[in-house]
Amino acid sequence: MKYLDDHLKKAANREPKSIEQQFLKLTEEVGEAAQAYLSSKGISGNRYKGLNRNNVKEELVDVLLVNLALLIRVGATEKEIEELVAHKTDKWLHNQNN
Amino acid sequence: MKYLDDHLKKAANREPKSIEQQFLKLTEEVGEAAQAYLSSKGISGNRYKGLNRNNVKEELVDVLLVNLALLIRVGATEKEIEELVAHKTDKWLHNQNN
Amino acid sequence: MKYLDDHLKKAANREPKSIEQQFLKLTEEVGEAAQAYLSSKGISGNRYKGLNRNNVKEELVDVLLVNLALLIRVGATEKEIEELVAHKTDKWLHNQNN
Amino acid sequence: MKYLDDHLKKAANREPKSIEQQFLKLTEEVGEAAQAYLSSKGISGNRYKGLNRNNVKEELVDVLLVNLALLIRVGATEKEIEELVAHKTDKWLHNQNN
Repeated sequence: MKYLDDHLKKAANREPKSIEQQFLKLTEEVGEAAQAYLSSKGISGNRYKGLNRNNVKEELVDVLLVNLALLIRVGATEKEIEELVAHKTDKWLHNQNN
Repeated sequence: MKYLDDHLKKAANREPKSIEQQFLKLTEEVGEAAQAYLSSKGISGNRYKGLNRNNVKEELVDVLLVNLALLIRVGATEKEIEELVAHKTDKWLHNQNN
Repeated sequence: MKYLDDHLKKAANREPKSIEQQFLKLTEEVGEAAQAYLSSKGISGNRYKGLNRNNVKEELVDVLLVNLALLIRVGATEKEIEELVAHKTDKWLHNQNN
Repeated sequence: MKYLDDHLKKAANREPKSIEQQFLKLTEEVGEAAQAYLSSKGISGNRYKGLNRNNVKEELVDVLLVNLALLIRVGATEKEIEELVAHKTDKWLHNQNN
């Protein structure tokens, strides 16, 4: 079991948010990851927030959780995810620089 | 002058962020609008943030500012924006329910 | 009337999507603007899509439409939007480089 | 090795996009997942695109790949990710309905 361990499946299946609300949550978490990255690089308008690379890692893991929870909610199995990841990683390696 | 008043153009043209960094800022602001909406509706995981409909309006105006600033940075003129808005609103009205 | 002309208000008020679904649409359009920008710069993985700066402008205006429609749906008035834009543009000018 | 297998690490480390460009790619992929979901539910304005639940799964796996690649690029180790996932899943289970 790589992506969907039982602990995560329990949380995903107990989650009261609708799928649409979880998509809003995914948008929220991607926004927080972008914010943390801009702040970690001292970019104008975000420097004062004082976030660093560890905050970026945390926010990207929040994205990962909501993403995996959505995959569970739309019925993706562990097997499907692993096959899609393998296939798409191949395609990605092949397409780099196109 | 509808969308790009001089005050906004001054801020957009003085903005030190690169265009790519402004796209991350747009992602950040859309994320904050989604967060405010979920909280304003008392949705699980966001209820405790105590945000309301006025916060949603504020965050959507933040999206508007970054969006207009990006349009300025990629060289869109007021005339182009007004023509695109009119054309696309027609198309939107025509496509509703398709 | 700067932001919310009658034509746009008609389309926004006739829109069958729920507010949450419109937030997903906003996420979709911001994604398409990011895609167009990456392709317009010939960035690896997007170069083959052959999009250019005009496509970036079009996608950013799509973001503008959905964003303004959401402002209408959450009850923002023209006056509120203009006041928020003015106030936030001041704040933005003041915070640049912080 | 749960999240960061060697195949993915090879693709992530060979990726020519900058981290900021990969954040734009993450925004693009989240947008495509939102689009696929709206279309799969026959929502107005997206119905004609004829996408289905399998498309939603595919797009969410695209988000997963870009997200994991970003975690690699910001220096997250497999151990860090697993610890963060476990900690945050606990927190998520604890906060559900708050």
